Amino acid sequence: MSADTGRQTMQPTLGIIAGGGGMPGRVATAARAAGRAVFIVGLEGFAERPVLAPFPHTFARIGAVGAIRQLLDTNGCRDLVLIGSVRRPSFLDMRPDAEGAKLIARIGRAAFAGDDGLLGAIVRILEQDGYKVLAAQDILREALAPSGLLTTAAPDAQAMADIARGVVVARALGVADVGQGCVVQQGLVLAVEAVEGTDGMISRCAPLARPGPGGVLVKLAKPGQERRADLPTIGPSTVQAAHTAGLRGIAFEAGGTLIADRDATVALADKTGLFLLGIDPGTYTSGERP
Amino acid sequence: MSADTGRQTMQPTLGIIAGGGGMPGRVATAARAAGRAVFIVGLEGFAERPVLAPFPHTFARIGAVGAIRQLLDTNGCRDLVLIGSVRRPSFLDMRPDAEGAKLIARIGRAAFAGDDGLLGAIVRILEQDGYKVLAAQDILREALAPSGLLTTAAPDAQAMADIARGVVVARALGVADVGQGCVVQQGLVLAVEAVEGTDGMISRCAPLARPGPGGVLVKLAKPGQERRADLPTIGPSTVQAAHTAGLRGIAFEAGGTLIADRDATVALADKTGLFLLGIDPGTYTSGERP
Repeated sequence: MSADTGRQTMQPTLGIIAGGGGMPGRVATAARAAGRAVFIVGLEGFAERPVLAPFPHTFARIGAVGAIRQLLDTNGCRDLVLIGSVRRPSFLDMRPDAEGAKLIARIGRAAFAGDDGLLGAIVRILEQDGYKVLAAQDILREALAPSGLLTTAAPDAQAMADIARGVVVARALGVADVGQGCVVQQGLVLAVEAVEGTDGMISRCAPLARPGPGGVLVKLAKPGQERRADLPTIGPSTVQAAHTAGLRGIAFEAGGTLIADRDATVALADKTGLFLLGIDPGTYTSGERP
Repeated sequence: MSADTGRQTMQPTLGIIAGGGGMPGRVATAARAAGRAVFIVGLEGFAERPVLAPFPHTFARIGAVGAIRQLLDTNGCRDLVLIGSVRRPSFLDMRPDAEGAKLIARIGRAAFAGDDGLLGAIVRILEQDGYKVLAAQDILREALAPSGLLTTAAPDAQAMADIARGVVVARALGVADVGQGCVVQQGLVLAVEAVEGTDGMISRCAPLARPGPGGVLVKLAKPGQERRADLPTIGPSTVQAAHTAGLRGIAFEAGGTLIADRDATVALADKTGLFLLGIDPGTYTSGERP
């Protein structure tokens, strides 16, 4: 139960603070496969029971910081992973417990604006309190998106131009600490992501699209993003949404995106004819705009 | 019929190239009230018959550049106003006539990406061809949004903070030549505008909103925007959409926004309790972000 982070034969139980989607289960499975015990705290309203069911777990309100901390300590968790989707809580509907209120005071109300402010502050506070916060991709190494083409389909010249435009737009958004995604078709930005989430953004593109070659989804990590808590994630549902909306492919930041179930994601892309391309946004310059 | 732009007692007929909405009719009415004849070319699929009906007018496809030019020349129009909403045409569905194809070649296909590229190029080409392109606000002076508060309701401290955040986001988008608007609630960017248009963006905010004080719409002109062809426009429908979505007010760029029917717009805002605030975005710095 010490905060000793040196190598031990028996690693302490990995605590997983879980939001929505299947990623918490994947991280837990990978940790177990590596011989490590896990304990999951599912955030009420976000974490999904079937995902958590195979593992020791419990549920807690996101504002119940004192309860969460006690659960982690009781179960011997000093190493933590924060994983899964969590819609940003309103400052007003968090209903914090006593420790939650103290935490909010430490974070500062201002951090409830942009994503990075809040998550970065939470990670820093957990570390100040002696927890070690690991990235999901440290446990689940194959989840980190690689560079290059993953699919049979490949982007043509128009799609490559759309990707370049999308990188410029997504980067501008990231600097303003908003979304991480946009859809570009034939040079035109059809949609830009804010709190509706990537799938929500994609689903409204179909009626906005023009005739001719379909658009592309571009998803980047934000500059300075807290990579231990909030990397953009794509998976089969992203591919399905993109296909339904008539998009031709997805470009994502290599090393800065998680792919939930890569085999299933790539298989669905191949089946629907979409390309998946890992890019280094640093190689794109805004000079490519007319 | 000369291109002489010197002052004459009888001004030549004002040519109005009209997109959707009521603004073309307002410009035509103002020009007539000033003693000037008008001739409207309504763009098929955008211009609305009831708006054009009181004035000499005809309809033409947006790609029928040769036909439009001939109509303007036949009716003695050397001064032009481009006004009303036009959804960006696809490069592929313009069906240009011979002159349209030449025009597209002069503009360059690249300009079909961002808004400014295209509209700026069209204005420059019209001027090269001897037309004088006037801004709608040159004819309809009261349409240009003033600075300051227009309504009984005023923004509180939270709304002012949301406006400051929205200015930073809208400006980042404008630099990337995307939309001109966003909605911010309690520091969180709920939605960002791309091609769906302002009303479309607003209408998807209701389910994204959090409990507590409602959000604000921020609408700016883009840096370097061609102010003779494409200023952002707000009107009663914007106020209605904002009210329906639970927003508390609208901040817009003073001197960089057109207000369609200011009396009706302000009256509806007062009736629904929204504020309308004309701002100078230059006085906002990104330093206000945490």
